[in-house]
Amino acid sequence: MKWDTLENEPCPVARGLSVLGDRWTMMVVRDCFLGIRRFDQMQQRLGITRHVLADRLRKLETAGVLRRDPYQDRPVRYEYRLTEQGKALYPILVTLIDWAEENVPPKTVTAMTILSQETGRPIDPILVDSNTGNPITHRNVTVRKTG
Amino acid sequence: MKWDTLENEPCPVARGLSVLGDRWTMMVVRDCFLGIRRFDQMQQRLGITRHVLADRLRKLETAGVLRRDPYQDRPVRYEYRLTEQGKALYPILVTLIDWAEENVPPKTVTAMTILSQETGRPIDPILVDSNTGNPITHRNVTVRKTG
Repeated sequence: MKWDTLENEPCPVARGLSVLGDRWTMMVVRDCFLGIRRFDQMQQRLGITRHVLADRLRKLETAGVLRRDPYQDRPVRYEYRLTEQGKALYPILVTLIDWAEENVPPKTVTAMTILSQETGRPIDPILVDSNTGNPITHRNVTVRKTG
Repeated sequence: MKWDTLENEPCPVARGLSVLGDRWTMMVVRDCFLGIRRFDQMQQRLGITRHVLADRLRKLETAGVLRRDPYQDRPVRYEYRLTEQGKALYPILVTLIDWAEENVPPKTVTAMTILSQETGRPIDPILVDSNTGNPITHRNVTVRKTG
């Protein structure tokens, strides 16, 4: 397998990572969910080079995760917004946060808590099978190879 | 931010990615969930260099995601197995697969389908708040900054 052609792999993990698996990409997605839309803001927050940020934004746009809207003429400047495909990444971000809070303890206080608007309390995310409502774990599923 | 010190960031996304965000790392985790335990098997399946694979395995072991068990003496050889921390990555893998199946269409047939042992049908994973049983989306939560 080559990283640059992962999107051609039959495995969905490989195809997902062809879009999301580069360093910084999910940090860019995080910022988009936090309402950060402009290149300079992102660059300042992430402290990465303009070159790397431009590369990640371009790939996310090509993959249909972000769209670019002009917000200024002369010179033209763009805002980046999540498409529906991009918004569909939210469960990945939430499961990543949940895992990190449990397994990569912060050196100081954690930066964010996600609260349910319904209960006002921190969410407790679990993955369930919508067909049954029961939790999905690696112990109660079977992987069928189809490729 | 520097990639090598992401684990010190207060943001849980950054901390999670300090463990999982390098190229190939989640592919290694995928193989572990598929029961692949030995270095040579992984290397053959992934087609990456021994150097990169050894680096990713060492980082995952240091982070407590994998443990290394000897299965042979002279020379000593090791198997890699998911710890409880590693098994807790399953929801991230499932949400990644689900997103990729919807949004990164395969060029050929997809390689795997995850079936519920309870229903025998493909799972339909959704993320819910265990406090209410209701789905979690970016529209029904609030992020509270605590750092």
